[in-house]
Amino acid sequence: MTYLDAFLAAVQDAYDPEDNPAGHVVLAVAENKRSHEHFLEQMREASSSGGSGAAGSGPPPECMGYDDMRGIGRLRTALAALLRRTFLPVATEERLTISAGCGAIIENVAFLTCSPGDAVLIPAPFYPAFVNDLSVRAAVVPWAVAASEHNPGGRHVPTVRDLEEAAEAAEKAGHPVRVLLLTNPSNPLGVVWDADAMATMIKWCLRRGVHCVSDEIYALSIFDEAAASHFVSAAVLAEREDVRAEGDAENLVHVVWGLSKDFCGSGLRVGCLWSQNEALNTAMNNVSYFCAVGNYQQHVLAAALEAEEATDAFLAANRARLRQAAELVCAGLEEAHVPFVRPEAGMFVWVDLRGALRAQSAEGERALWQELLDSKKLLLTPGQDCRGSQPGWFRCCFAAVPEAAVREGVQRLGQFVKDEAKRF
Amino acid sequence: MTYLDAFLAAVQDAYDPEDNPAGHVVLAVAENKRSHEHFLEQMREASSSGGSGAAGSGPPPECMGYDDMRGIGRLRTALAALLRRTFLPVATEERLTISAGCGAIIENVAFLTCSPGDAVLIPAPFYPAFVNDLSVRAAVVPWAVAASEHNPGGRHVPTVRDLEEAAEAAEKAGHPVRVLLLTNPSNPLGVVWDADAMATMIKWCLRRGVHCVSDEIYALSIFDEAAASHFVSAAVLAEREDVRAEGDAENLVHVVWGLSKDFCGSGLRVGCLWSQNEALNTAMNNVSYFCAVGNYQQHVLAAALEAEEATDAFLAANRARLRQAAELVCAGLEEAHVPFVRPEAGMFVWVDLRGALRAQSAEGERALWQELLDSKKLLLTPGQDCRGSQPGWFRCCFAAVPEAAVREGVQRLGQFVKDEAKRF
Repeated sequence: MTYLDAFLAAVQDAYDPEDNPAGHVVLAVAENKRSHEHFLEQMREASSSGGSGAAGSGPPPECMGYDDMRGIGRLRTALAALLRRTFLPVATEERLTISAGCGAIIENVAFLTCSPGDAVLIPAPFYPAFVNDLSVRAAVVPWAVAASEHNPGGRHVPTVRDLEEAAEAAEKAGHPVRVLLLTNPSNPLGVVWDADAMATMIKWCLRRGVHCVSDEIYALSIFDEAAASHFVSAAVLAEREDVRAEGDAENLVHVVWGLSKDFCGSGLRVGCLWSQNEALNTAMNNVSYFCAVGNYQQHVLAAALEAEEATDAFLAANRARLRQAAELVCAGLEEAHVPFVRPEAGMFVWVDLRGALRAQSAEGERALWQELLDSKKLLLTPGQDCRGSQPGWFRCCFAAVPEAAVREGVQRLGQFVKDEAKRF
Repeated sequence: MTYLDAFLAAVQDAYDPEDNPAGHVVLAVAENKRSHEHFLEQMREASSSGGSGAAGSGPPPECMGYDDMRGIGRLRTALAALLRRTFLPVATEERLTISAGCGAIIENVAFLTCSPGDAVLIPAPFYPAFVNDLSVRAAVVPWAVAASEHNPGGRHVPTVRDLEEAAEAAEKAGHPVRVLLLTNPSNPLGVVWDADAMATMIKWCLRRGVHCVSDEIYALSIFDEAAASHFVSAAVLAEREDVRAEGDAENLVHVVWGLSKDFCGSGLRVGCLWSQNEALNTAMNNVSYFCAVGNYQQHVLAAALEAEEATDAFLAANRARLRQAAELVCAGLEEAHVPFVRPEAGMFVWVDLRGALRAQSAEGERALWQELLDSKKLLLTPGQDCRGSQPGWFRCCFAAVPEAAVREGVQRLGQFVKDEAKRF
């Protein structure tokens, strides 16, 4: 995070309509605190009533001992069932690896598929923490792919030519390309890439013999129904005839998912990898030792997820809450004539403040970010941190703070833009 | 593990006095299953009655969100209090980092203090998994230090000369020495090194500017009272005048500990680092992200450990059970005239089967190991896996299987040695 001190200070002085109306509004964290208590309640109930499968007994004694480092069988079974019911119909227990968060999964996949100095291509704008995930220990180079043409709706889908150019540039700089890391639904864009867009990119990977890692951590947070109907997991596309015809889909396509977003549980530290690549899964068995999830919590989670009806109801209710929160933000932005990419999934809106820039540059964007913070006590994620190609875009997260704070933040943003408009 | 297939097969065919009297006896796992249900019960009670500090409510909502990657404040506070009460009187919350197991802690310390190819000296014989912990991702070279003179009681304390010679050999081979990794109480020896022995090694580190990492994961499993009275943590020694006089003790001495052994919870995946080195602790804050413990489980553990009387009673009862288990094994070995190092701590005995070797070599040891497995269906940890300097020693773990199985294993070992003696 390029603004950690400002962030921590702002969090310490958080806005509250009653107690601190002049406080900071922090809309920079992609967490969902609209539904987290609901899933926690489901975990608590499972823990006390069915943690071991028997009433009232909690996690069983074997949770205290060594178990499968890729995750206990019970949780992998429960997760595979959930994934099959939802967006990953080909999920099986054997193909899942559970680790302490998706960051650990992505780091390990990078470590196992790349050598230090190799490049991982990532369509921009992207989740800022990928940089740390890939580089700090695995020493792999994240390489942004700029989408040359802005598709309808600000989707930033890279074309084959965009991918080719990025790969060429990375290799010219001495970084052989081993992986294309996609995020669908997109963070920070909040949009869903459709099957054609995804298939095109996967095919490019297969032709080139490059791994395609599809981070689908927001797959169950698609609150726009049209978007939900055209979302297709990379795991499903990897089964399609025309995709398989292009190369070794079985060994090169992998999906990342976890509980941080769709189950509002970033603090649970549970991520997982779906892969059919046996060599990769075997290697994950070793390195997962360093990031295994505690078996006590794994049993509690398994018991919670085994309550399938409750789980599905939770997911639907959560999406409804996200939809409502997104609509609130969109309405506020529209009212203030602030352009944005209409969100379909996740917990953020990609907001276009280019009109308020004093200078069309990274420095100009940073100055604007600082001004929003200083004059409006409003903290957004700067687009440059997501490697946005054009300065002046910001990510506005709408589910980590209470609705009143989101409302206040959007109101302050509208006021800021209005004041700016007057100034020129 | 050099014998994974044999191990898994043996576990599948485990001895049972009633159901499988001809089955395999596996005495190769350093787990404690004598007391694990007791601590689990304490966790369950805490989870249902005090997980959030309030009766009946379990872990609080904030467990669902991001928190300190070095461990939530509540658990660090509870652990610091426990450590202060027991063997680490200088422990404070700020100096603790919690990660998913001691393997993750050791890997991260190696990653942060070494460059790839640097050496970590480890007095032999040592815990076999250190090799994977250090080398698989951190690419650091574990370098065994052989104790040239066998101290009374088979303690294998390296002298300064042993350390010097090992360091010289490592550096000659192109591996600059950055760390000395000690394990006290020792795995696999089961003995406690006293303050003088430890201070000598720490001083050597300080004079050389090398980090001393003291793995004290068995510190609360010292069941021999005399040994318990002469155990002193490296953290305490780092405060001693004569030690501090030798170099930068504050920044170079670190202690590793966790719940896997002393709380019978290898499946909980909780390890921790105590360090006063601020740069190291800051860096741990970043890399701990990849191996953080789920906050739900952290809250449950904190609540369990906050029950201080129950915790202390658990630890005392666990030590009594270990003492009893150790005495059973020692009596059996003595009866069969099998020499061994008398254990003072942990859950294993270092057994001397040199007399049964056909060849005084690593191959001879492996052949003997295989013969024990084939003819007696008895599986021990081969000493060569612990880099024992003399072939023919084996680690016999006495707490991972039920007492009847341990009794049977020792009986089979005695029979084997008796048969061997007849053969010559």
